[in-house]
Amino acid sequence: MVMQAPMQQLIQCLTVLPGVGEKTATRLALYLVNCPAEQALALSGAIAQARERIRLCSLCYNYTEQELCTICGSTVRERRVVCVVETPGDIMSFERIGGYNGCYHVLHGSIAPLDGIGPDQLRIKELLARVESGGIEEVILATNPTMNGNATAVYIAEQLKNSGVQLTRIAQGIQPGADIGYADQTTLKNALEWRRNMK
Amino acid sequence: MVMQAPMQQLIQCLTVLPGVGEKTATRLALYLVNCPAEQALALSGAIAQARERIRLCSLCYNYTEQELCTICGSTVRERRVVCVVETPGDIMSFERIGGYNGCYHVLHGSIAPLDGIGPDQLRIKELLARVESGGIEEVILATNPTMNGNATAVYIAEQLKNSGVQLTRIAQGIQPGADIGYADQTTLKNALEWRRNMK
Repeated sequence: MVMQAPMQQLIQCLTVLPGVGEKTATRLALYLVNCPAEQALALSGAIAQARERIRLCSLCYNYTEQELCTICGSTVRERRVVCVVETPGDIMSFERIGGYNGCYHVLHGSIAPLDGIGPDQLRIKELLARVESGGIEEVILATNPTMNGNATAVYIAEQLKNSGVQLTRIAQGIQPGADIGYADQTTLKNALEWRRNMK
Repeated sequence: MVMQAPMQQLIQCLTVLPGVGEKTATRLALYLVNCPAEQALALSGAIAQARERIRLCSLCYNYTEQELCTICGSTVRERRVVCVVETPGDIMSFERIGGYNGCYHVLHGSIAPLDGIGPDQLRIKELLARVESGGIEEVILATNPTMNGNATAVYIAEQLKNSGVQLTRIAQGIQPGADIGYADQTTLKNALEWRRNMK
């Protein structure tokens, strides 16, 4: 074998990353061995640091270093509106658009019967308890528009139907810039269903 | 900001990797925070280990943990043939094909006047000294078929022209499976120049 054990080890560890096959892993490993040492060690340290310091917000289950995440701990965010998402990454996506001022709740997945993931493996109980404890007026169900995401939204809506909070679902429709001629049937069906009056 | 400091730090460290932009870095960071801790810490450790243990072979400048790399230290490799490559990754590529039984010499780059890299910044002196010390019959110039790689090959060939060793250059031509109609002029010119008698 031409490769050294630590190199093979590094390539193997890199292969577990999403979207990283053996070829990309090899390229990254060669870079990490060849780049300035402080760059490689900074990455090594940042991974360890992140694992050591990041935990889940006790209210919304977003990543945080404190008891509450920056959003739940903020004095300017609207606590009466809670946007329910599948992952902390989804919060980043919504925050990037900048216009949403409510809070979040991270389920950490979606109901996926085929993968053996039921409601109990998600942070759904915690969401119901949060609604139960009061002060929430709207729950926006922002799970992915996939089979699992839709099923999760329907399940949560069912659980909360007598709670008195307003339940909304993010719109599904045709993407801006897309061509109606190329859109699939489900997309067009959704675009029609979600239609609204023009102002 | 919605992101925690260690998360931002991790994303920033990942962005230095080749081919990793901010979006991919975010995806990788979210994975690293969410995956089993031992997986993330194994990667962190593997990077540090690789940086600590890997150094350059004192003969060919390939990566190694010992004084000599596994190829230079091998008793079955042909020491009379030396294949000159730009990077240790190129050795991996040649080893993958499996048919080459000679040794290597890693230049760690190519002559790149525009980037201020001249012969002195590469392991060319070391190659000349290695040829000088005897026992080598053929030097295969396997630098990339790029302007810099070709210039490097020409430069080394010039330095070694009176050394008595056979100097060869890897073939440039049309790739297997390619279509002559789509090949560019340089490719076809090379394919003609490198032509050989059919057996």
